[in-house]
Amino acid sequence: MTLKNAFYAQSGGVTAVINASAAGVIETARKYPKKIGKVFAGKNGILGALEENLIDTSLETDKQISLLKQTPGGAFGSARYKLKGLEENQKEYSRLVEVFKAHNIGYFFYNGGGDSMDTANKVSEMGESMNFPIASIGIPKTVDNDLPITDTCPGFGSVAKYIAVSTHEASLDVLSMAETSTKVFVLEVMGRHAGWIAAASGLISNHRNEPPHIIHVQQRGFCVIVASEGARYKNGKFLADAGTKDSFGHKQLGGVAPVIAAMVKESLGYKYHYAIADYLQRSARHLASQTDLKQAYSVGEAAVRMAIRGEKSKMVTIDRISDTPYKWQVGSAPLAKVANNEKMMPRKFITNNGYGITNACKTYMLPLIKGEAYPIYTNGLPTFAKLKNKLVEKRLKTKLI
Amino acid sequence: MTLKNAFYAQSGGVTAVINASAAGVIETARKYPKKIGKVFAGKNGILGALEENLIDTSLETDKQISLLKQTPGGAFGSARYKLKGLEENQKEYSRLVEVFKAHNIGYFFYNGGGDSMDTANKVSEMGESMNFPIASIGIPKTVDNDLPITDTCPGFGSVAKYIAVSTHEASLDVLSMAETSTKVFVLEVMGRHAGWIAAASGLISNHRNEPPHIIHVQQRGFCVIVASEGARYKNGKFLADAGTKDSFGHKQLGGVAPVIAAMVKESLGYKYHYAIADYLQRSARHLASQTDLKQAYSVGEAAVRMAIRGEKSKMVTIDRISDTPYKWQVGSAPLAKVANNEKMMPRKFITNNGYGITNACKTYMLPLIKGEAYPIYTNGLPTFAKLKNKLVEKRLKTKLI
Repeated sequence: MTLKNAFYAQSGGVTAVINASAAGVIETARKYPKKIGKVFAGKNGILGALEENLIDTSLETDKQISLLKQTPGGAFGSARYKLKGLEENQKEYSRLVEVFKAHNIGYFFYNGGGDSMDTANKVSEMGESMNFPIASIGIPKTVDNDLPITDTCPGFGSVAKYIAVSTHEASLDVLSMAETSTKVFVLEVMGRHAGWIAAASGLISNHRNEPPHIIHVQQRGFCVIVASEGARYKNGKFLADAGTKDSFGHKQLGGVAPVIAAMVKESLGYKYHYAIADYLQRSARHLASQTDLKQAYSVGEAAVRMAIRGEKSKMVTIDRISDTPYKWQVGSAPLAKVANNEKMMPRKFITNNGYGITNACKTYMLPLIKGEAYPIYTNGLPTFAKLKNKLVEKRLKTKLI
Repeated sequence: MTLKNAFYAQSGGVTAVINASAAGVIETARKYPKKIGKVFAGKNGILGALEENLIDTSLETDKQISLLKQTPGGAFGSARYKLKGLEENQKEYSRLVEVFKAHNIGYFFYNGGGDSMDTANKVSEMGESMNFPIASIGIPKTVDNDLPITDTCPGFGSVAKYIAVSTHEASLDVLSMAETSTKVFVLEVMGRHAGWIAAASGLISNHRNEPPHIIHVQQRGFCVIVASEGARYKNGKFLADAGTKDSFGHKQLGGVAPVIAAMVKESLGYKYHYAIADYLQRSARHLASQTDLKQAYSVGEAAVRMAIRGEKSKMVTIDRISDTPYKWQVGSAPLAKVANNEKMMPRKFITNNGYGITNACKTYMLPLIKGEAYPIYTNGLPTFAKLKNKLVEKRLKTKLI
């Protein structure tokens, strides 16, 4: 058997630690030069394969690959691009096979969330149906923490830590001014349907009445609200959809935070401030969780080991062995079971009034934010990887149409 | 001479390190029990004196006072309250003298920005004109970095570091998705007229075309804009004043970021994201600058030493001795020269096109963000001081009317 090369790509929204998974893949592959050839990274996810834009990671120094562990964002470019089913879009799959054959690629490592696991699964199905041997392994990543089977998703622990710490810090700020000025602070965080990120802010509260809380300004003198960008009214309408237009005549761009702040002002008359964390939260490598970073690296490492062992059509998982002390190991799940299957936060993680998190939730979540994995700083600023990202010479004359 | 007590208070918007100045005052006073009595902290700034709400810091343990160095917010409560001139408001000054006499207070340490230095100066003038001996010392603090004479203001270095690091991190995030998705990211930061905080984001750029930039999406494929909340049109109108109303019928609450984002969308059609850092930036103790923290502590410490030496009517300053290597020492300036005197960013710190910072600006600013002063974490979360904040028993029968 000739030595096969590997394709690795990052997909969907990036995180503070997705590059640590990339480092896990590349460093592990470098340890087995007799088992695995070069690692080609797709420029902008699966598009890199479709467009034959393959980054030759073998040209990067060990030092730069190691620095990926402390570099946020997606070092090779990411994309949201979902392959259609094999029957619907034979052309794309034929193109993938053509590119993989041209570059002797036998391993497909895809690093992303639910949609990306669907892509990994389809590539695997393609291999079966087109009689083209490719070991497709999914590497989990998503700040939304909504992949099934795995206990958690790399990327979530770090954003949870950032939101918990930032909420605590801002709460102390609001508290100090509350008697004479701003009484209400609203923090808008990411998280689609599942609401895991907003829940993380509850980790700072040891007692009733500590922030974050919803509306008990009158009792406590101040109020801190953490709201998910996906928060809805009972009728299903998004809070962020204010239905108004700005001075340019297009739809108001406001998020959830200003809407909630306006409600508070309208009903209670309190002075407020709000923050919208947006990309700051998912790129905050400066406050990454050590647990999360280890897990992000481990799923990349495990993907390569699994492929070398001949496994395929699987996603790497984080399996929890025990809560106290927190113990975990890497495992795996069939891609077919993971794809298009969103994990919601269990109802038992939310208090009955819907405004806080339970001890069960804290038991689950606290280990995920444990430990600080600071980047190295030079002259006050973190040192991030600077890759060459040199593309492999194209071997195909045709382009994807 | 009987042993005099001290009054210390925090004023105006709080910072990540103002409590370090408090620790500097209290720990230093504790070292000189024969020179200085108790330190009473005003509950909510000068209001604590006017309302005779004095927190007895002598009841706090050394450990908790030390933890103040890693605790953001204002531990004793802050307020924006400006004393009127002596002629206009004799009543307030008489009240202050009454409270200070009742509690044997001979030292007045006031920790804040421009308005607060005005208050400290007025208290000093009051002492002169009412023949009531009080050593008034101003302790500088403001994220806006706009106090005169002092080379920098404690609080600024940490927010500058937070904005520089966060901008860099978010830039990597945007860059990774720019070819297929979001091309423009706008970060709204604090800073009134002087614009120091937005300028700090320029520290991450070593070369032309690196973020943050304004509008060269077409050349680079993405764009990161850092905008001050106080940004204005040429005609002086604030960008944030969109002049529109929301669905509740009151003025649109949007900040600068959504306005700039809308401009980009309108003119160029690019997909965008925006973040509003608000209180997150000035409370981000988790990313405080070591230089800033040391200076914040030192100005508190120096205030007490100056008072013990018999100095008064002065603000402590940070004096820069050299840029490279960065050397500084504490000095002082007359309060009368500091009060109501705002320091703008020098024109030579801004590039000719107005969109970047110069090397002179970097030389000034880089030392201020140097070093990382991480708080101690327990189970993934920072440990913050928990003060008793017990009030001294009131001795006056009257209240401030």
